[in-house]
Amino acid sequence: MKLLEDVIREKGTILEGGVLKVDSFLNHQIDPELMKALGDEFADAFADYGINKILTVETSGIAPAVFAGLKLGVPVVFGRKNKSLTLQDNMYTTSVYSYTKQTSNEISISKDFLNSDDRVLIIDDFLANGQAVAGLFSICKSAGASIAGVGIVIEKSFQKGRRFVEESGIPILSLARVASLDDRTVTFVDETKEDANE
Amino acid sequence: MKLLEDVIREKGTILEGGVLKVDSFLNHQIDPELMKALGDEFADAFADYGINKILTVETSGIAPAVFAGLKLGVPVVFGRKNKSLTLQDNMYTTSVYSYTKQTSNEISISKDFLNSDDRVLIIDDFLANGQAVAGLFSICKSAGASIAGVGIVIEKSFQKGRRFVEESGIPILSLARVASLDDRTVTFVDETKEDANE
Repeated sequence: MKLLEDVIREKGTILEGGVLKVDSFLNHQIDPELMKALGDEFADAFADYGINKILTVETSGIAPAVFAGLKLGVPVVFGRKNKSLTLQDNMYTTSVYSYTKQTSNEISISKDFLNSDDRVLIIDDFLANGQAVAGLFSICKSAGASIAGVGIVIEKSFQKGRRFVEESGIPILSLARVASLDDRTVTFVDETKEDANE
Repeated sequence: MKLLEDVIREKGTILEGGVLKVDSFLNHQIDPELMKALGDEFADAFADYGINKILTVETSGIAPAVFAGLKLGVPVVFGRKNKSLTLQDNMYTTSVYSYTKQTSNEISISKDFLNSDDRVLIIDDFLANGQAVAGLFSICKSAGASIAGVGIVIEKSFQKGRRFVEESGIPILSLARVASLDDRTVTFVDETKEDANE
Protein backbone atom coordinates (compact mmCIF):
# COMPACT_ATOMS: atom_id res chain seq x y z
CA MET A 1 0.00 0.00 0.00
CA LYS A 2 1.83 3.02 -1.31
CA LEU A 3 0.26 5.52 1.10
CA LEU A 4 1.51 3.54 4.08
CA GLU A 5 4.98 2.97 2.60
CA ASP A 6 5.31 6.70 2.01
CA VAL A 7 4.30 7.47 5.60
CA ILE A 8 6.76 4.88 6.95
CA ARG A 9 9.57 6.34 4.80
CA GLU A 10 8.73 9.87 5.90
CA LYS A 11 7.95 9.37 9.59
CA GLY A 12 9.42 6.04 10.67
CA THR A 13 12.76 5.91 12.45
CA ILE A 14 15.07 2.95 12.85
CA LEU A 15 16.65 2.16 16.19
CA GLU A 16 19.58 -0.11 17.00
CA GLY A 17 18.76 -3.78 16.63
CA GLY A 18 16.33 -3.44 13.75
CA VAL A 19 13.47 -1.81 15.64
CA LEU A 20 11.27 0.26 13.33
CA LYS A 21 9.73 3.01 15.39
CA VAL A 22 6.41 4.33 14.07
CA ASP A 23 5.31 6.15 17.19
CA SER A 24 4.21 9.26 15.34
CA PHE A 25 1.27 7.66 13.52
CA LEU A 26 0.61 4.14 14.86
CA ASN A 27 2.15 3.08 18.16
CA HIS A 28 1.80 6.15 20.36
CA GLN A 29 0.38 9.01 18.36
CA ILE A 30 -2.34 7.74 16.01
CA ASP A 31 -3.26 9.28 12.67
CA PRO A 32 -7.02 8.63 12.43
CA GLU A 33 -7.27 9.28 8.67
CA LEU A 34 -4.46 6.85 7.98
CA MET A 35 -6.04 4.28 10.30
CA LYS A 36 -9.31 4.59 8.38
CA ALA A 37 -7.45 4.04 5.10
CA LEU A 38 -5.75 0.94 6.53
CA GLY A 39 -8.98 -0.42 7.99
CA ASP A 40 -10.84 0.16 4.72
CA GLU A 41 -8.08 -1.68 2.84
CA PHE A 42 -8.40 -4.72 5.10
CA ALA A 43 -12.20 -4.63 4.81
CA ASP A 44 -12.09 -4.47 1.01
CA ALA A 45 -9.55 -7.27 0.74
CA PHE A 46 -11.48 -9.62 3.01
CA ALA A 47 -15.02 -8.53 2.10
CA ASP A 48 -15.94 -11.91 0.60
CA TYR A 49 -14.42 -14.14 3.27
CA GLY A 50 -17.54 -14.55 5.40
CA ILE A 51 -15.96 -12.79 8.36
CA ASN A 52 -18.19 -12.13 11.36
CA LYS A 53 -15.57 -10.91 13.83
CA ILE A 54 -12.20 -9.19 13.94
CA LEU A 55 -9.61 -10.28 16.46
CA THR A 56 -6.65 -8.14 17.51
CA VAL A 57 -4.39 -7.63 20.52
CA GLU A 58 -4.16 -4.47 22.54
CA THR A 59 -2.98 -1.84 21.87
CA SER A 60 -1.92 -0.67 18.45
CA GLY A 61 -4.01 -3.07 16.38
CA ILE A 62 -7.21 -1.60 17.74
CA ALA A 63 -7.42 1.55 15.61
CA PRO A 64 -7.11 -0.12 12.19
CA ALA A 65 -9.26 -3.00 13.43
CA VAL A 66 -12.20 -0.81 14.42
CA PHE A 67 -12.22 0.91 11.03
CA ALA A 68 -12.14 -2.48 9.31
CA GLY A 69 -14.92 -3.64 11.65
CA LEU A 70 -16.99 -0.58 10.85
CA LYS A 71 -16.76 -1.19 7.11
CA LEU A 72 -17.38 -4.95 7.38
CA GLY A 73 -20.18 -4.40 9.92
CA VAL A 74 -18.65 -6.78 12.48
CA PRO A 75 -17.45 -6.40 16.07
CA VAL A 76 -13.80 -6.27 17.11
CA VAL A 77 -12.47 -8.33 20.02
CA PHE A 78 -9.08 -7.43 21.41
CA GLY A 79 -6.92 -9.82 23.40
CA ARG A 80 -5.98 -8.39 26.76
CA LYS A 81 -2.37 -8.52 27.83
CA ASN A 82 -3.06 -8.33 31.55
CA LYS A 83 -5.86 -9.87 33.48
CA SER A 84 -8.04 -7.44 35.35
CA LEU A 85 -10.54 -8.02 38.12
CA THR A 86 -13.37 -7.51 35.68
CA LEU A 87 -12.10 -10.28 33.41
CA GLN A 88 -11.62 -13.52 35.27
CA ASP A 89 -12.04 -17.21 34.60
CA ASN A 90 -13.96 -18.12 31.50
CA MET A 91 -10.99 -17.08 29.35
CA TYR A 92 -8.88 -18.52 26.58
CA THR A 93 -5.30 -17.67 27.51
CA THR A 94 -1.96 -18.08 25.82
CA SER A 95 1.55 -16.82 26.48
CA VAL A 96 3.21 -14.56 23.93
CA TYR A 97 6.83 -13.50 23.94
CA SER A 98 7.63 -10.00 22.70
CA TYR A 99 11.16 -9.67 21.32
CA THR A 100 10.82 -5.88 21.30
CA LYS A 101 9.84 -5.68 24.96
CA GLN A 102 11.80 -8.80 25.95
CA THR A 103 8.95 -10.01 28.13
CA SER A 104 6.21 -12.60 27.95
CA ASN A 105 2.60 -11.53 28.20
CA GLU A 106 -0.47 -13.56 28.80
CA ILE A 107 -3.03 -12.80 26.11
CA SER A 108 -6.59 -13.56 27.15
CA ILE A 109 -9.90 -13.55 25.32
CA SER A 110 -13.21 -14.20 27.02
CA LYS A 111 -15.10 -17.31 26.01
CA ASP A 112 -18.15 -15.04 25.80
CA PHE A 113 -16.76 -13.41 22.67
CA LEU A 114 -15.19 -16.22 20.66
CA ASN A 115 -16.69 -19.58 19.79
CA SER A 116 -17.06 -22.19 17.07
CA ASP A 117 -19.58 -20.09 15.13
CA ASP A 118 -16.96 -17.42 14.55
CA ARG A 119 -15.02 -16.86 11.37
CA VAL A 120 -12.42 -14.28 12.22
CA LEU A 121 -10.06 -11.86 10.57
CA ILE A 122 -6.95 -11.31 12.69
CA ILE A 123 -5.52 -7.78 12.48
CA ASP A 124 -2.31 -6.63 14.11
CA ASP A 125 0.04 -3.69 13.80
CA PHE A 126 3.28 -5.64 13.31
CA LEU A 127 4.27 -9.09 12.11
CA ALA A 128 7.86 -9.94 12.96
CA ASN A 129 8.51 -13.33 14.51
CA GLY A 130 4.82 -14.17 14.49
CA GLN A 131 4.47 -14.65 18.23
CA ALA A 132 1.27 -12.61 18.62
CA VAL A 133 -0.38 -14.15 15.55
CA ALA A 134 0.60 -17.65 16.72
CA GLY A 135 -0.97 -16.85 20.09
CA LEU A 136 -4.21 -15.76 18.42
CA PHE A 137 -4.17 -18.90 16.22
CA SER A 138 -3.85 -20.96 19.37
CA ILE A 139 -6.76 -19.16 21.03
CA CYS A 140 -8.94 -19.58 17.94
CA LYS A 141 -8.13 -23.29 17.89
CA SER A 142 -9.12 -23.59 21.56
CA ALA A 143 -12.38 -21.78 20.81
CA GLY A 144 -13.08 -23.81 17.67
CA ALA A 145 -13.25 -20.56 15.69
CA SER A 146 -12.11 -20.61 12.07
CA ILE A 147 -9.58 -18.08 10.80
CA ALA A 148 -10.44 -16.49 7.48
CA GLY A 149 -7.36 -14.33 7.15
CA VAL A 150 -4.61 -12.26 8.69
CA GLY A 151 -4.24 -8.53 8.10
CA ILE A 152 -0.98 -6.89 9.11
CA VAL A 153 -0.13 -3.20 8.99
CA ILE A 154 3.66 -3.57 8.85
CA GLU A 155 5.40 -6.86 8.16
CA LYS A 156 9.09 -7.37 8.71
CA SER A 157 9.48 -9.77 5.83
CA PHE A 158 13.02 -10.68 6.88
CA GLN A 159 11.77 -12.29 10.08
CA LYS A 160 10.00 -15.59 10.36
CA GLY A 161 6.39 -14.54 11.00
CA ARG A 162 5.38 -14.28 7.34
CA ARG A 163 6.55 -17.81 6.60
CA PHE A 164 4.76 -19.08 9.69
CA VAL A 165 1.44 -17.69 8.46
CA GLU A 166 1.99 -18.86 4.86
CA GLU A 167 2.75 -22.38 6.04
CA SER A 168 -0.54 -22.41 7.94
CA GLY A 169 -2.35 -21.89 4.63
CA ILE A 170 -4.26 -18.90 5.98
CA PRO A 171 -4.45 -15.93 3.59
CA ILE A 172 -2.38 -12.95 4.67
CA LEU A 173 -2.40 -9.32 3.59
CA SER A 174 0.40 -7.10 4.86
CA LEU A 175 -0.10 -3.47 3.89
CA ALA A 176 3.62 -2.69 4.07
CA ARG A 177 6.30 -5.37 3.71
CA VAL A 178 9.69 -4.30 4.99
CA ALA A 179 12.47 -6.25 3.29
CA SER A 180 15.30 -4.69 5.23
CA LEU A 181 16.19 -2.08 7.82
CA ASP A 182 19.92 -2.29 7.12
CA ASP A 183 21.98 0.89 7.18
CA ARG A 184 19.06 2.51 8.97
CA THR A 185 17.13 2.63 5.71
CA VAL A 186 13.69 1.14 5.11
CA THR A 187 13.58 -1.03 2.01
CA PHE A 188 10.24 -2.54 1.02
CA VAL A 189 9.72 -5.89 -0.67
CA ASP A 190 9.80 -5.21 -4.38
CA GLU A 191 6.19 -4.98 -5.48
CA THR A 192 6.71 -6.64 -8.85
CA LYS A 193 8.36 -9.59 -7.16
CA GLU A 194 5.57 -9.66 -4.56
CA ASP A 195 2.88 -9.84 -7.26
CA ALA A 196 4.73 -12.64 -9.03
CA ASN A 197 4.82 -14.67 -5.85
CA GLU A 198 1.19 -14.39 -4.89
CA MET B 1 -26.83 10.11 25.13
CA LYS B 2 -29.84 7.91 24.86
CA LEU B 3 -28.29 5.41 22.44
CA LEU B 4 -25.46 4.70 24.86
CA GLU B 5 -27.75 4.48 27.89
CA ASP B 6 -29.90 1.96 26.06
CA VAL B 7 -26.86 -0.17 25.19
CA ILE B 8 -25.61 -0.03 28.79
CA ARG B 9 -29.04 -1.08 30.09
CA GLU B 10 -29.28 -3.89 27.59
CA LYS B 11 -25.71 -5.23 27.60
CA GLY B 12 -24.00 -4.00 30.75
CA THR B 13 -23.72 -6.25 33.78
CA ILE B 14 -23.04 -5.26 37.36
CA LEU B 15 -20.54 -7.17 39.47
CA GLU B 16 -20.05 -7.17 43.23
CA GLY B 17 -18.52 -3.95 44.50
CA GLY B 18 -20.13 -1.62 42.00
CA VAL B 19 -18.18 -2.69 38.93
CA LEU B 20 -20.11 -2.02 35.75
CA LYS B 21 -18.94 -4.51 33.16
CA VAL B 22 -19.33 -3.38 29.56
CA ASP B 23 -17.08 -5.96 27.97
CA SER B 24 -19.48 -6.76 25.15
CA PHE B 25 -19.22 -3.38 23.41
CA LEU B 26 -16.41 -1.28 24.93
CA ASN B 27 -13.82 -2.96 27.15
CA HIS B 28 -13.11 -6.27 25.41
CA GLN B 29 -15.42 -6.65 22.43
CA ILE B 30 -15.82 -3.33 20.64
CA ASP B 31 -18.87 -2.24 18.68
CA PRO B 32 -17.39 -0.07 15.89
CA GLU B 33 -20.69 1.60 14.93
CA LEU B 34 -21.33 2.60 18.52
CA MET B 35 -17.75 3.84 18.86
CA LYS B 36 -18.23 6.03 15.77
CA ALA B 37 -21.43 7.45 17.28
CA LEU B 38 -19.61 8.23 20.53
CA GLY B 39 -16.61 9.75 18.75
CA ASP B 40 -18.87 11.89 16.55
CA GLU B 41 -20.72 13.12 19.65
CA PHE B 42 -17.46 14.23 21.28
CA ALA B 43 -16.31 15.86 18.05
CA ASP B 44 -19.57 17.79 17.66
CA ALA B 45 -19.60 18.93 21.29
CA PHE B 46 -16.03 20.20 21.21
CA ALA B 47 -15.90 21.36 17.58
CA ASP B 48 -15.41 25.02 18.52
CA TYR B 49 -12.85 24.55 21.28
CA GLY B 50 -9.74 24.97 19.14
CA ILE B 51 -8.59 21.43 19.78
CA ASN B 52 -5.52 20.23 17.90
CA LYS B 53 -4.97 16.90 19.65
CA ILE B 54 -6.85 14.20 21.53
CA LEU B 55 -5.30 12.55 24.54
CA THR B 56 -6.41 9.21 25.93
CA VAL B 57 -4.97 6.26 27.84
CA GLU B 58 -4.70 2.75 26.52
CA THR B 59 -6.76 0.70 25.94
CA SER B 60 -10.50 1.29 25.85
CA GLY B 61 -10.44 5.03 25.24
CA ILE B 62 -8.70 4.54 21.91
CA ALA B 63 -11.69 3.49 19.77
CA PRO B 64 -13.97 6.46 20.58
CA ALA B 65 -10.93 8.76 20.51
CA VAL B 66 -9.89 7.82 16.96
CA PHE B 67 -13.41 8.45 15.65
CA ALA B 68 -13.47 11.83 17.41
CA GLY B 69 -10.02 12.52 15.99
CA LEU B 70 -11.14 11.58 12.49
CA LYS B 71 -14.09 13.99 12.63
CA LEU B 72 -12.09 16.82 14.22
CA GLY B 73 -9.16 16.19 11.87
CA VAL B 74 -6.64 15.89 14.70
CA PRO B 75 -4.25 13.15 15.89
CA VAL B 76 -4.82 10.99 18.94
CA VAL B 77 -2.08 10.35 21.48
CA PHE B 78 -2.56 7.53 23.95
CA GLY B 79 -0.74 7.30 27.25
CA ARG B 80 1.11 4.03 27.61
CA LYS B 81 0.72 2.05 30.79
CA ASN B 82 3.98 0.16 30.48
CA LYS B 83 7.28 1.38 29.20
CA SER B 84 8.64 -0.50 26.24
CA LEU B 85 12.11 -0.58 24.72
CA THR B 86 10.92 1.59 21.87
CA LEU B 87 9.71 4.32 24.22
CA GLN B 88 12.42 5.43 26.59
CA ASP B 89 13.53 8.65 28.24
CA ASN B 90 12.06 11.82 26.84
CA MET B 91 8.72 10.99 28.49
CA TYR B 92 6.21 12.70 30.73
CA THR B 93 5.28 10.11 33.33
CA THR B 94 2.78 9.95 36.17
CA SER B 95 1.49 7.23 38.44
CA VAL B 96 -2.20 6.31 38.31
CA TYR B 97 -4.00 4.01 40.72
CA SER B 98 -6.77 1.81 39.34
CA TYR B 99 -9.39 0.88 41.93
CA THR B 100 -10.82 -1.74 39.57
CA LYS B 101 -7.48 -3.47 39.03
CA GLN B 102 -6.12 -2.55 42.48
CA THR B 103 -2.74 -1.68 40.99
CA SER B 104 -0.79 1.42 40.16
CA ASN B 105 0.35 2.00 36.59
CA GLU B 106 2.84 4.43 35.25
CA ILE B 107 1.26 6.40 32.42
CA SER B 108 3.78 7.83 29.99
CA ILE B 109 3.51 10.18 27.04
CA SER B 110 6.44 11.08 24.83
CA LYS B 111 7.59 14.69 24.86
CA ASP B 112 7.65 14.40 21.06
CA PHE B 113 3.85 14.36 20.97
CA LEU B 114 2.75 16.85 23.62
CA ASN B 115 3.97 20.39 24.11
CA SER B 116 2.93 23.93 24.96
CA ASP B 117 1.40 24.51 21.51
CA ASP B 118 -1.17 21.81 22.17
CA ARG B 119 -4.77 22.34 23.11
CA VAL B 120 -6.12 18.93 23.96
CA LEU B 121 -9.38 17.10 24.40
CA ILE B 122 -9.01 14.27 26.91
CA ILE B 123 -11.16 11.23 26.13
CA ASP B 124 -11.51 8.17 28.34
CA ASP B 125 -13.87 5.23 28.65
CA PHE B 126 -14.69 5.58 32.35
CA LEU B 127 -14.64 8.35 34.93
CA ALA B 128 -14.94 7.02 38.46
CA ASN B 129 -12.50 8.38 41.02
CA GLY B 130 -10.77 10.51 38.43
CA GLN B 131 -7.34 8.96 38.80
CA ALA B 132 -6.65 8.58 35.08
CA VAL B 133 -7.95 12.06 34.23
CA ALA B 134 -5.91 13.56 37.07
CA GLY B 135 -2.85 11.78 35.69
CA LEU B 136 -3.45 13.23 32.23
CA PHE B 137 -4.02 16.71 33.74
CA SER B 138 -0.66 16.35 35.47
CA ILE B 139 1.08 15.32 32.25
CA CYS B 140 -0.51 18.24 30.34
CA LYS B 141 0.68 20.62 33.05
CA SER B 142 4.22 19.23 32.78
CA ALA B 143 4.09 19.68 29.01
CA GLY B 144 2.58 23.15 29.21
CA ALA B 145 -0.34 21.95 27.08
CA SER B 146 -3.76 23.49 27.66
CA ILE B 147 -6.80 21.31 28.24
CA ALA B 148 -9.89 22.33 26.30
CA GLY B 149 -12.22 19.68 27.64
CA VAL B 150 -12.82 16.21 28.95
CA GLY B 151 -14.99 13.65 27.14
CA ILE B 152 -16.05 10.55 29.05
CA VAL B 153 -17.99 7.59 27.72
CA ILE B 154 -19.38 6.35 31.05
CA GLU B 155 -19.26 8.42 34.22
CA LYS B 156 -19.98 6.96 37.63
CA SER B 157 -21.53 10.14 38.96
CA PHE B 158 -21.64 8.77 42.51
CA GLN B 159 -17.85 8.71 42.70
CA LYS B 160 -15.58 11.68 43.08
CA GLY B 161 -14.12 12.04 39.55
CA ARG B 162 -16.88 14.28 38.19
CA ARG B 163 -16.48 16.77 41.01
CA PHE B 164 -12.72 16.76 40.56
CA VAL B 165 -13.06 17.78 36.90
CA GLU B 166 -15.76 20.37 37.62
CA GLU B 167 -13.62 21.98 40.31
CA SER B 168 -10.80 22.30 37.80
CA GLY B 169 -13.08 24.49 35.68
CA ILE B 170 -12.47 22.37 32.60
CA PRO B 171 -15.61 21.59 30.54
CA ILE B 172 -16.72 17.98 30.73
CA LEU B 173 -19.10 15.93 28.63
CA SER B 174 -20.02 12.46 29.87
CA LEU B 175 -22.12 10.55 27.36
CA ALA B 176 -23.70 8.35 30.03
CA ARG B 177 -23.91 9.39 33.69
CA VAL B 178 -24.57 6.53 36.04
CA ALA B 179 -26.22 7.73 39.24
CA SER B 180 -26.33 4.36 40.95
CA LEU B 181 -25.58 0.67 40.53
CA ASP B 182 -27.47 -0.31 43.67
CA ASP B 183 -29.51 -3.51 43.63
CA ARG B 184 -27.58 -4.47 40.50
CA THR B 185 -29.61 -1.99 38.49
CA VAL B 186 -28.20 0.84 36.39
CA THR B 187 -29.83 4.17 37.17
CA PHE B 188 -28.78 7.18 35.12
CA VAL B 189 -28.61 10.76 36.34
CA ASP B 190 -31.99 12.28 35.59
CA GLU B 191 -31.62 14.21 32.34
CA THR B 192 -33.95 17.03 33.32
CA LYS B 193 -31.98 17.60 36.49
CA GLU B 194 -28.74 17.40 34.50
CA ASP B 195 -29.89 20.07 32.06
CA ALA B 196 -30.92 22.36 34.89
CA ASN B 197 -27.52 22.04 36.51
CA GLU B 198 -25.44 22.83 33.46
